[in-house]
Amino acid sequence: MTTQAPLINQLGVVKRNIDRANAAARDQLGQFGTATIHEAMGRVGLMKPIMRPIYPGARACGTAVTVLLQPGDNWMMHVAAEQIQPGDIVVAAVTADCTDGFFGDLLATSFMARGAQGLVIDGGVRDVKDLSAMGFPVWSKAISSKGTIKATLGSVNIPVICAGALVNPGDVVVADDDGVVVVPASIAQQVADAAKKRENLEGEKREKLAAGVLGLDMYQMREPLAKAGLRYID
Amino acid sequence: MTTQAPLINQLGVVKRNIDRANAAARDQLGQFGTATIHEAMGRVGLMKPIMRPIYPGARACGTAVTVLLQPGDNWMMHVAAEQIQPGDIVVAAVTADCTDGFFGDLLATSFMARGAQGLVIDGGVRDVKDLSAMGFPVWSKAISSKGTIKATLGSVNIPVICAGALVNPGDVVVADDDGVVVVPASIAQQVADAAKKRENLEGEKREKLAAGVLGLDMYQMREPLAKAGLRYID
Amino acid sequence: MTTQAPLINQLGVVKRNIDRANAAARDQLGQFGTATIHEAMGRVGLMKPIMRPIYPGARACGTAVTVLLQPGDNWMMHVAAEQIQPGDIVVAAVTADCTDGFFGDLLATSFMARGAQGLVIDGGVRDVKDLSAMGFPVWSKAISSKGTIKATLGSVNIPVICAGALVNPGDVVVADDDGVVVVPASIAQQVADAAKKRENLEGEKREKLAAGVLGLDMYQMREPLAKAGLRYID
Amino acid sequence: MTTQAPLINQLGVVKRNIDRANAAARDQLGQFGTATIHEAMGRVGLMKPIMRPIYPGARACGTAVTVLLQPGDNWMMHVAAEQIQPGDIVVAAVTADCTDGFFGDLLATSFMARGAQGLVIDGGVRDVKDLSAMGFPVWSKAISSKGTIKATLGSVNIPVICAGALVNPGDVVVADDDGVVVVPASIAQQVADAAKKRENLEGEKREKLAAGVLGLDMYQMREPLAKAGLRYID
Amino acid sequence: MTTQAPLINQLGVVKRNIDRANAAARDQLGQFGTATIHEAMGRVGLMKPIMRPIYPGARACGTAVTVLLQPGDNWMMHVAAEQIQPGDIVVAAVTADCTDGFFGDLLATSFMARGAQGLVIDGGVRDVKDLSAMGFPVWSKAISSKGTIKATLGSVNIPVICAGALVNPGDVVVADDDGVVVVPASIAQQVADAAKKRENLEGEKREKLAAGVLGLDMYQMREPLAKAGLRYID
Amino acid sequence: MTTQAPLINQLGVVKRNIDRANAAARDQLGQFGTATIHEAMGRVGLMKPIMRPIYPGARACGTAVTVLLQPGDNWMMHVAAEQIQPGDIVVAAVTADCTDGFFGDLLATSFMARGAQGLVIDGGVRDVKDLSAMGFPVWSKAISSKGTIKATLGSVNIPVICAGALVNPGDVVVADDDGVVVVPASIAQQVADAAKKRENLEGEKREKLAAGVLGLDMYQMREPLAKAGLRYID
Repeated sequence: MTTQAPLINQLGVVKRNIDRANAAARDQLGQFGTATIHEAMGRVGLMKPIMRPIYPGARACGTAVTVLLQPGDNWMMHVAAEQIQPGDIVVAAVTADCTDGFFGDLLATSFMARGAQGLVIDGGVRDVKDLSAMGFPVWSKAISSKGTIKATLGSVNIPVICAGALVNPGDVVVADDDGVVVVPASIAQQVADAAKKRENLEGEKREKLAAGVLGLDMYQMREPLAKAGLRYID
Repeated sequence: MTTQAPLINQLGVVKRNIDRANAAARDQLGQFGTATIHEAMGRVGLMKPIMRPIYPGARACGTAVTVLLQPGDNWMMHVAAEQIQPGDIVVAAVTADCTDGFFGDLLATSFMARGAQGLVIDGGVRDVKDLSAMGFPVWSKAISSKGTIKATLGSVNIPVICAGALVNPGDVVVADDDGVVVVPASIAQQVADAAKKRENLEGEKREKLAAGVLGLDMYQMREPLAKAGLRYID
Repeated sequence: MTTQAPLINQLGVVKRNIDRANAAARDQLGQFGTATIHEAMGRVGLMKPIMRPIYPGARACGTAVTVLLQPGDNWMMHVAAEQIQPGDIVVAAVTADCTDGFFGDLLATSFMARGAQGLVIDGGVRDVKDLSAMGFPVWSKAISSKGTIKATLGSVNIPVICAGALVNPGDVVVADDDGVVVVPASIAQQVADAAKKRENLEGEKREKLAAGVLGLDMYQMREPLAKAGLRYID
Repeated sequence: MTTQAPLINQLGVVKRNIDRANAAARDQLGQFGTATIHEAMGRVGLMKPIMRPIYPGARACGTAVTVLLQPGDNWMMHVAAEQIQPGDIVVAAVTADCTDGFFGDLLATSFMARGAQGLVIDGGVRDVKDLSAMGFPVWSKAISSKGTIKATLGSVNIPVICAGALVNPGDVVVADDDGVVVVPASIAQQVADAAKKRENLEGEKREKLAAGVLGLDMYQMREPLAKAGLRYID
Repeated sequence: MTTQAPLINQLGVVKRNIDRANAAARDQLGQFGTATIHEAMGRVGLMKPIMRPIYPGARACGTAVTVLLQPGDNWMMHVAAEQIQPGDIVVAAVTADCTDGFFGDLLATSFMARGAQGLVIDGGVRDVKDLSAMGFPVWSKAISSKGTIKATLGSVNIPVICAGALVNPGDVVVADDDGVVVVPASIAQQVADAAKKRENLEGEKREKLAAGVLGLDMYQMREPLAKAGLRYID
Repeated sequence: MTTQAPLINQLGVVKRNIDRANAAARDQLGQFGTATIHEAMGRVGLMKPIMRPIYPGARACGTAVTVLLQPGDNWMMHVAAEQIQPGDIVVAAVTADCTDGFFGDLLATSFMARGAQGLVIDGGVRDVKDLSAMGFPVWSKAISSKGTIKATLGSVNIPVICAGALVNPGDVVVADDDGVVVVPASIAQQVADAAKKRENLEGEKREKLAAGVLGLDMYQMREPLAKAGLRYID
């Protein structure tokens, strides 16, 4: 458990070379749901449930390019675009609560041209109809037409807190209808393996439950429940 | 108006025999919208509007199997599964505000195998894409990947407060895009009849309004409005 | 900048003759998104992002017939119906925060028969499935089955504050998936022209960005960023 | 566990004779904090934490006179006043979310003259400076100058859901800086006894902890923690 | 009911000469509570209850100097300071939801030196301990240490929407523990008179209620209640 | 900018030896307000403004002992107590949103006996009257009587996200009426020096402003404002 780098002097910084998670591990993680992945990590790593996709069925998985924005200002989004590599996902945090529409179809066009898999932003987004038509998935805490300015520096590719989760540049970020999960780059393969194992088990369970077997029996819960004091009355 | 049973000692209890509302009345209620039903009851019986379906067009009607959960713990969901009979709907309350994903596709598979019509939960739900594909409707206050543990007893089939509404086991619960309404079992038929009457009247009104008749005239509001002091200016 | 008219005595008033924005300007505004329009106005005129359409892809543009409601009371909606002319959109404010379902399919039938383009309400709406099927778009801050009474006077066609925006009767109101924007009647054409200009520019930009040109270069941001102190590290 | 009485026909009802909890038990409960009482009941019975006192240090304990209000309407408060007996506390619910100021210094003067111990309201309150000066404690979810009308019937002394808790008329309601707890009348003495026992134990614990004994040792947690897998690292 | 002036071109404007409400009327209004004043206006004119004073017992009354801020930017506050005259109160709106601390003890020192009576801000404030010690009252929707920049133009002394209320420069704004009310300059005396009348009546009522007279009798409510269908049961 | 340590395997861990910030730097930081400190850091490092002190005037500064809790479970608080050294402040995060009362007067007694300066918790707290009387300051997002259980492992002294801010064990945490700020241990002295410098400047400014000098002149804003396009009208 290393000490986090100083936060001071972090505004106005763009880190160009980041350690991206292994691409194979990233792609494996992209096959699992966020619920499965966060369970495989020990029930940690999730962003807050306020983060919602802009259209049902949205899914994305990528290595994080992080952005720290100032409220009402999306200047750094343009700086971030240049740092995107195919397979990346952009994760944007804001230094204060702000629901402005920091991102729209023009930036999405640019991000897509750079190979971005999607955007996760702890703020607002606009042009959601266009974004949906383009198939560019976004998870945000608000949808808002409100435009932003380009006047104040934030940073690109520093560690950020997005919707309650720490994201380091290069981490794998997976997002679906259920939410957004962050997998540290250094354990991406380990988590992918654990998720695989977990999902295999779920297949068997699903069949049994569909056949009418009760979880009470399948998980052998009757004894611990009785021990905990559960009583049945009529 | 009877006195409510003691709340104490209510944790750790599973009531097996509950008085379900009459099935015919339940099925009749299932044909009406929640708005019509709550109006037929005198504009009472609704859960708070924070409760939303996980997909548009979701509809469910059933007799309530109730569950009281502890925050972050879904153990009682498995206990509840055994109490489900075809035509039931599960209504889950939590002893404190919690948006965790207490329910997902495995439990839904089990609930469906038991004949459940859906789930209403004053908490979070996950695997919403799978649930939508399965056609298992859920109304919740949050969607969240966050998993839960199985460590603390709650209860099954005791009276619960779910999203601001009292639900007794066996009550009819109807849910649609507009919200969730609870009809006490003892008056299910009475409410179904009142709803039927109300809906018949609405058909006539709709035709008139579509033809351009104003509500002002149809409902004879001009006189009471004038009496209340309404004045027209140019 | 004129002084706003007195608020006192404003309850119980229906203004019949209002100055509607020029129809041609209104129709031109209807072709732009809310984000484009509010940018064309200098990034002002938006309602709060809590206002959401009841179905994806909803769009409306009309001249405002305004309504001021009391909490839990929709009497004035019927009074407003008579004031609707084809091409109007109804904008409803409430004198206090209230999420009740002030509007449903019967009123929508009446509003449509009068030529209304949609409804924007700083409160709740119900029968959303029917409204969606009818293609009657509504923007609201809540969906709720909760019915209302008809007992207290509000007003029709007075200036109202709806979701944080001032709406004068006759103003152009445009609403889409991104939100709701209000264009004062007196500047409708001016804003339509500015929006047109803005959109033309966006077409060119989109092509360049799609071709891989960076916003950093297209907007010539590298120099101002460097001047502001942005530094690149490895 | 009795079945709850029908909700239909409950509007427009005033129940005059209610079974109040035993006065001695009520007074004993008044000596404990809400945290202690709800623990003594098995960690149930609390209203939601959105309910806050209008001044620090507010405390009240009484037998509940319940009121069901309509949004924006406080007519029933006056009806309730007549039903208050010395030692009662008024508990007001609203049929929909509403933050209006349903209660102010005039009603407080009347309630005090009748012997009321305080007010718990799932809505707004006003004149809080006067109420504080009068020493009339109120717990509410909002403070708002917004006045109400007197036009629609609610009820008095029916079971109500207030801030997520079921309150039957006659139940003991205790409120302090930490929140509001409801003790069913039938178990008031039982809960008072359990609370007493609990508080006695706390005195001893407090002394030990103040002397530097760790909870880890006092509660013998080290073994179960190790068994659960807790590991210490350097 | 005049048409509102165009919003376009409103950014970057400072209006120097504003029509302040009559000072005598303003001072009279300062003697009443916000609840009384808004009732005297017909139950309108209030800001949303989210606006809270930074310390209990805060009170202010002044003629409004208005400010429109951009999110995260307090540049216009300094521009506003110059426009303050003794007896004014500053009312600050923000073009988007933002809880940053736009105002602290330095600006308060400046505002006090200019004769300001207080600040009402639809955003955040900081240094609240110092402001309390200085006796400079502020009503805000948040308290936040978060600082702001000085980069983007807003306006001073244009009509603004603050916490849901329209405020024209020169209007009388009264604020106390219950909330904030706006009295249009043109009717300040009329409202002061109505408030005076209302308060006189309250004094009599208070005495009667304190003596045990019921509102039911004092307001002669028994007959209308019976007519509305209220029934008493035992 | 180091890579963050793996999150996996972080549950069930207690780190005993942590690198606490220099005590002298910590004590110097304790003399500044949170607003000053976060400005000195470049306007970063703040927790969200939802975090509020339980009594006005609360102040604390300490080196962080961090705790990661599970919703509804405060077991780790007892584990944390043992790790507290004089001059520490406890910072508690929860793996999901939960407002339960994780902390009360017994734990406070234990924490005080160990030398803790206060508690910052992204959850609820209870016994606030007692805590206020004891002078044990707490910043929380809720006050709630709701008790918790002791069943699931979290961790102590791992990096946590608390109310939107990253806190590493040993960081300096300063809290006052305005909020909570986190200063990474490695830059504590540097920030203390910058804060000192900043505060010195503020003293001079305050005097000038009190004497009636305008910020416009003191900060030489007139020229940049004019350049940005600000125009004065009458």
